[in-house]
Amino acid sequence: MSAIEFHFEDFETGRVFALASAKVTAEAIIAFASEFDPQPMHLSEEAGKASILGGLSASGWHTASLFMRMMYDGWLSRSSSEGSPGIEYMEWKKPVLAGDTLSGRSTVIEARTLRSKPGIGLVKFLHEVENQRGEVVMRGENPIMMRLRAPASEVPACG
Amino acid sequence: MSAIEFHFEDFETGRVFALASAKVTAEAIIAFASEFDPQPMHLSEEAGKASILGGLSASGWHTASLFMRMMYDGWLSRSSSEGSPGIEYMEWKKPVLAGDTLSGRSTVIEARTLRSKPGIGLVKFLHEVENQRGEVVMRGENPIMMRLRAPASEVPACG
Repeated sequence: MSAIEFHFEDFETGRVFALASAKVTAEAIIAFASEFDPQPMHLSEEAGKASILGGLSASGWHTASLFMRMMYDGWLSRSSSEGSPGIEYMEWKKPVLAGDTLSGRSTVIEARTLRSKPGIGLVKFLHEVENQRGEVVMRGENPIMMRLRAPASEVPACG
Repeated sequence: MSAIEFHFEDFETGRVFALASAKVTAEAIIAFASEFDPQPMHLSEEAGKASILGGLSASGWHTASLFMRMMYDGWLSRSSSEGSPGIEYMEWKKPVLAGDTLSGRSTVIEARTLRSKPGIGLVKFLHEVENQRGEVVMRGENPIMMRLRAPASEVPACG
């Protein structure tokens, strides 16, 4: 288990956390689509070329799942995350094609403690995923619950 | 390829389309999490039991991807879908645990033609996924583009 580096208190509004990058292969696109989203444009180069997407393209749910891994590897694994209640919105802006390399960032847009859950705060992020040309392929917002660094009683009193 | 049974015109507000059901196995939960969301509660029964989720539980992105397949098998494969621009919101309401069987429905909440894309309409759905106890585990809304049945010129004039 990684050491926890980021607690609620570290998620200041405006702070940016880099996502890990991920290479999207044709094999991975087809494997994901075969299991979860077997629409033709996600299963073959020919059908992708014939669609408005312009080539073999990842299911939007595949891109979302890849984003989760990029977030985990980029910073979430080193945070005090207690999970998320959901997605506020998620937009698929451009096709993700076989051979693309994705990267991106999570930006803190709001952080507040929860009266209902002592010791936990809710941090809202804007997530942006880009391809190798710097085009945003997916963006969205979601809140993640984060433990505070220490209960108030353990925080040393400062002068 | 399945025959197209549902075009834009068939998505009347309030109409309900059943999702196919899906059994969630421990193996599938662990396989998905190992690839996309390797948080401990998605990787072992022990870590799941120690978490607020209460057992080995599916990543929210796994549930979302399973929902996509349940929608495809339930009705989307027989529709004139041209894909979706995104998710308006998605809430993970309850843990999805190993052994659960999921089912659910998509309900049309709005349908309108697009001035910018002749021959295409946008249909907004409320999607609800339930477990075998009838508890909603995930719900959300998303718009899907659907081709109209026939261009106006091909529609026979009616009395």
